[in-house]
Amino acid sequence: MAEAASPAFAALPSPPFYAAIFSSLRNGDDEAGYQAAAARMLELAARQPGFLGVESARGADRFGITVSYWESEAAIADWKRHAEHAAVRAHGRGHWYDHFELRVAKVERAYGKSASR
Amino acid sequence: MAEAASPAFAALPSPPFYAAIFSSLRNGDDEAGYQAAAARMLELAARQPGFLGVESARGADRFGITVSYWESEAAIADWKRHAEHAAVRAHGRGHWYDHFELRVAKVERAYGKSASR
Repeated sequence: MAEAASPAFAALPSPPFYAAIFSSLRNGDDEAGYQAAAARMLELAARQPGFLGVESARGADRFGITVSYWESEAAIADWKRHAEHAAVRAHGRGHWYDHFELRVAKVERAYGKSASR
Repeated sequence: MAEAASPAFAALPSPPFYAAIFSSLRNGDDEAGYQAAAARMLELAARQPGFLGVESARGADRFGITVSYWESEAAIADWKRHAEHAAVRAHGRGHWYDHFELRVAKVERAYGKSASR
């Protein structure tokens, strides 16, 4: 496992593992509610069996990508069924996003590099 | 293929296909050079056989995620070998990033949703 260069990077084991790639366009409404829910979901996800890590970025155009990493597809399915997560997802679909896409993928290869210092 | 809700979303076929998940921390140097190279790489990638689309987000913290989508692993390998792309990658490793990670993954499932209007 490579040491993460910044807290923004997930420190992941060697592949294979799974990725849930969530891309979304925020509608700009209820930023405080959205931020609180996002922090809570991260806290809950990190406690789920099989959670490996998460990386997230959102630009000023409100388009964002969050990739969460998991040991298995079963771990993603369990997280999807988590009751509080399901309730927040249902709320989010109606209140926070103009559009979103979720892609579930099996990570087969990985490499990384830090700048020489 | 779902119609994209915004140009920020890639309009992708049904899985399976492949994803190159590139996460990076910009060092903040040479923003003009970086932007020009990123635009040029997007233009070149879009001409590559097997290119399906790309999504990208970078926050004010300089951490970004770009996910490019491809028909096959071979298409990703061909893009990696593209001479101009290889030269720009080599330059970028030394000049634009504090750190980056690349994960290559097979997308197995996908779904999306737009807000009701």
